[in-house]
Amino acid sequence: MLIRCSASKIMIICHSTAAFIRSNIWKKAFHFSAAMAKSKFEYVRLFEVDDRCLPNTWVVVRVDGKGFHKFSTEHGYEKPNDIKALSLMNRAATSVMEEFKDICLAYGQSDEYSFVFRKETQAYSRRSAKLSTNVCSLFTSAFVYYWNEYFPTIKPRYPPVFDGRTVLYPSNQNIRDYLSWRQADCHINNLYNTTFWALILKGGLTPTEAENKLKGTLSGDKNEILFSQFAINYNTEPEMLRKGTVLVRRKVPVALPNGGTREKSQIVQEHVDIIGDEFWNTNTHLLTLT
Amino acid sequence: MLIRCSASKIMIICHSTAAFIRSNIWKKAFHFSAAMAKSKFEYVRLFEVDDRCLPNTWVVVRVDGKGFHKFSTEHGYEKPNDIKALSLMNRAATSVMEEFKDICLAYGQSDEYSFVFRKETQAYSRRSAKLSTNVCSLFTSAFVYYWNEYFPTIKPRYPPVFDGRTVLYPSNQNIRDYLSWRQADCHINNLYNTTFWALILKGGLTPTEAENKLKGTLSGDKNEILFSQFAINYNTEPEMLRKGTVLVRRKVPVALPNGGTREKSQIVQEHVDIIGDEFWNTNTHLLTLT
Amino acid sequence: MLIRCSASKIMIICHSTAAFIRSNIWKKAFHFSAAMAKSKFEYVRLFEVDDRCLPNTWVVVRVDGKGFHKFSTEHGYEKPNDIKALSLMNRAATSVMEEFKDICLAYGQSDEYSFVFRKETQAYSRRSAKLSTNVCSLFTSAFVYYWNEYFPTIKPRYPPVFDGRTVLYPSNQNIRDYLSWRQADCHINNLYNTTFWALILKGGLTPTEAENKLKGTLSGDKNEILFSQFAINYNTEPEMLRKGTVLVRRKVPVALPNGGTREKSQIVQEHVDIIGDEFWNTNTHLLTLT
Amino acid sequence: MLIRCSASKIMIICHSTAAFIRSNIWKKAFHFSAAMAKSKFEYVRLFEVDDRCLPNTWVVVRVDGKGFHKFSTEHGYEKPNDIKALSLMNRAATSVMEEFKDICLAYGQSDEYSFVFRKETQAYSRRSAKLSTNVCSLFTSAFVYYWNEYFPTIKPRYPPVFDGRTVLYPSNQNIRDYLSWRQADCHINNLYNTTFWALILKGGLTPTEAENKLKGTLSGDKNEILFSQFAINYNTEPEMLRKGTVLVRRKVPVALPNGGTREKSQIVQEHVDIIGDEFWNTNTHLLTLT
Repeated sequence: MLIRCSASKIMIICHSTAAFIRSNIWKKAFHFSAAMAKSKFEYVRLFEVDDRCLPNTWVVVRVDGKGFHKFSTEHGYEKPNDIKALSLMNRAATSVMEEFKDICLAYGQSDEYSFVFRKETQAYSRRSAKLSTNVCSLFTSAFVYYWNEYFPTIKPRYPPVFDGRTVLYPSNQNIRDYLSWRQADCHINNLYNTTFWALILKGGLTPTEAENKLKGTLSGDKNEILFSQFAINYNTEPEMLRKGTVLVRRKVPVALPNGGTREKSQIVQEHVDIIGDEFWNTNTHLLTLT
Repeated sequence: MLIRCSASKIMIICHSTAAFIRSNIWKKAFHFSAAMAKSKFEYVRLFEVDDRCLPNTWVVVRVDGKGFHKFSTEHGYEKPNDIKALSLMNRAATSVMEEFKDICLAYGQSDEYSFVFRKETQAYSRRSAKLSTNVCSLFTSAFVYYWNEYFPTIKPRYPPVFDGRTVLYPSNQNIRDYLSWRQADCHINNLYNTTFWALILKGGLTPTEAENKLKGTLSGDKNEILFSQFAINYNTEPEMLRKGTVLVRRKVPVALPNGGTREKSQIVQEHVDIIGDEFWNTNTHLLTLT
Repeated sequence: MLIRCSASKIMIICHSTAAFIRSNIWKKAFHFSAAMAKSKFEYVRLFEVDDRCLPNTWVVVRVDGKGFHKFSTEHGYEKPNDIKALSLMNRAATSVMEEFKDICLAYGQSDEYSFVFRKETQAYSRRSAKLSTNVCSLFTSAFVYYWNEYFPTIKPRYPPVFDGRTVLYPSNQNIRDYLSWRQADCHINNLYNTTFWALILKGGLTPTEAENKLKGTLSGDKNEILFSQFAINYNTEPEMLRKGTVLVRRKVPVALPNGGTREKSQIVQEHVDIIGDEFWNTNTHLLTLT
Repeated sequence: MLIRCSASKIMIICHSTAAFIRSNIWKKAFHFSAAMAKSKFEYVRLFEVDDRCLPNTWVVVRVDGKGFHKFSTEHGYEKPNDIKALSLMNRAATSVMEEFKDICLAYGQSDEYSFVFRKETQAYSRRSAKLSTNVCSLFTSAFVYYWNEYFPTIKPRYPPVFDGRTVLYPSNQNIRDYLSWRQADCHINNLYNTTFWALILKGGLTPTEAENKLKGTLSGDKNEILFSQFAINYNTEPEMLRKGTVLVRRKVPVALPNGGTREKSQIVQEHVDIIGDEFWNTNTHLLTLT
């Protein structure tokens, strides 16, 4: 194929890359030589950037549903929460955590999931785009792959999409605050949505009426509406909805064929508070170097 | 949830973010105020980086199958090429191009696809991670979604994964050289694989024997082996295999209900040379500003 | 010195870098081995980032006086322009251009100077911080070094400071627009300052009165004030003030000891328009690859 | 000046920036409007990148002499160490620390100086290039400015240059290891140089002979050569040479006009070990948030 290139074209290419080809600096820097190149065009690899994450820093990859308001409506998600949809999110996140051993904790709520890589991880040489795209692709793939285990009667109408991003957090306090931010967000949104849909589904309000009723209300006001109008004690709602889902690895006993048990590391789902100190005090291994 | 935070904890957080909260600089820079924040933890958003791509530069997002040697073997892909698998790749890429109007051309071969965004694209404000993860997620999602249209009798054994990366190319020559690099790679690999599998499937060699036989051979040698031993004229092999697939938008005539036709823009597959000048001379709109 | 490190300290360091030391990935990536390291602490070099500029892109380093409003007042710069101060800027910029052969053009006005590196430059492997700090340090150093050639009777009251930045421009149009931006800025500011100081020095206004008088005026209004009130034809003001200074290399004849001349490349100052096409049409070598 | 632009030129510019100008995204992102722009060319500002440092991370700016082997020889620096030259380095570093209140500690040796900004610093909004170029420019400027206080009889032969870089360190251990790395480097180089120059100046060896003699020697060997051949006890050499210089702020008593004293914060030089724990245990404020 290269032989069919006109001489003038190869001239142009050689011309524009002459500085590279003559320079010893980049050869040393990139271990790249004309001999190794499969074609004259391979110099374009030099345009890729080195995006390695700062060492000794927590690496979070968060995936986020794209247009999931529309997606949830079109696929008949139950309101205010669809347990099947949240369970599918947890299933997809478990696939990610099975693949990446350096993810020590994941936290999910609504249509998003955050994956926390150990500070010392060398996965993909800590390259930011490699981490975000691999996690994001596997999460998406597993979401579609396991869909019909959770929605056996509905085929997805189009391929769902999640975006991803990599964010760094230097200190243990910062990573805890990051997770607290997401869990506080879960709480705020879920209390709002629970009240909003109670007003509509049980109170007979229109969406606009419900929205107006909730404008400017505080947490206490929403708790009061739920309790006095609909006899709902928000604090006894399922913890998966109020707290989201934490994925961690735990040693669990596994039955042996000849009786007895042995311990095995397994990814488990927990719906617990991760804002206060208790979770971290009982899971000190998560924030220390391994 | 925040009310349950111990006073000391909030103290710590306030303490560590005091510099931020007092500083007018970041408030102006981020349009971020304590009043807007849903919780005290929201300062962690400031750790996200601005990764906007240099303006007036070609933006390429390339997705690449992860471990597809194994994946193709486990799913019985035909050797040296599986038309169904390549067609599924083309289908997934078409989904991406339908979604992102600013992709002017895509090129795919083997288990990879490159998407070329117009130089002036403002998609996702040119944010690098947004572009790579959205493209990568949609490509993956469509690949699983449409799988059974191409492999109706085989369920995928596990969720397939593609990684993604964003690379910038400043000049028209650079973006052409990038695409030439991928098409030259297609040619080199396909000629090798065609010969390798002919030696095995038709010549009865073991993989190791075939590998040894091809060691150090040039293009001419492989063409000769194919022609003299197996009566295969490589140049008459299907162009999709030798050249890969180019996706571009073309105006195509669409039949109207009451007879007649009208022109409609549609994404079409072409298996043509994009290294030489001919393709670019007949598609000058691709490299000019729109 | 290392022997005096307590065992526990070395333990801690080894611990926190264990992942690095065990990992083959970074060893290959960085060509870094325990044997090469002068001390156990050398792992901290891995925290430096690779900031190489995108290839085939114009690299501009602009240096800018820090607090030069105050500096010019404290050192008695003449108003609205001090020829000696501008000449010193040009002298410092010439030092930078003598040192960096890959700077093909520099443009200066007021307390700033922009240095344009050729698209293909491999100076400092195109590392952004290396380029900006070296240029900035040399400019500053030369400014102080040559100070007393231009201000022989005044000792600087404190060390003057210039900041620096590296900016990339992909196309010829972009780099021309960058230079046009700086020259338009020169024009706008100089016309304003010339009128402002005429009103004060010749018209007897206070600075506040002059400011109010000029509020909302257009170019034509300022030209009119200068001409009708002070008989100044702005277009005949010195070109160095109205256009700034362009530094380029020109072949100039040099006298030989035994009579005759030979051509020599030299850095020359020109005070010409670089917004229109004429300069670029007569200096086509500047925007083409060398 | 803009009026002299040909219509076609403005067309070209408008054309190439049309996507920007139409896009609301970048207007919101940059608070930039056509009305605010002084000229049509101002869009080129959008090519500058946001290089803010990760929050809550130690920021180190290190300046390093460029070609100081040559510079020290040409200016007759005493060998192996020139106290005047080191004192000038310390003077220049003090200027930097006086200017940047957020530098809590600086460490210098040979022709380099490292400046440690507090983790929470918001100086220049933590912009990496702003920090490195400002520090580097001020250091260079002060070095030339104060030169003749230390070398009153020698005029510098050319403007000296220092490069600069910004590096981030997330944990207290990392920043201590960074400083240990530089001090270990000081120790290793100074022991070598002291022995090397003793062999030449007192032992009568040529530089090549001295180099060969030291090849492969360990610290103990060099101490032994110094002691047995030249009666030099390395451990009693001046601490400034063996340990380098630490700059910190200390409250020192200042005499009042009417008698008595008051405490004042001042930058002081200390030549102490910063690898072991003692310095940090007695200066705990340096590593804690202020």
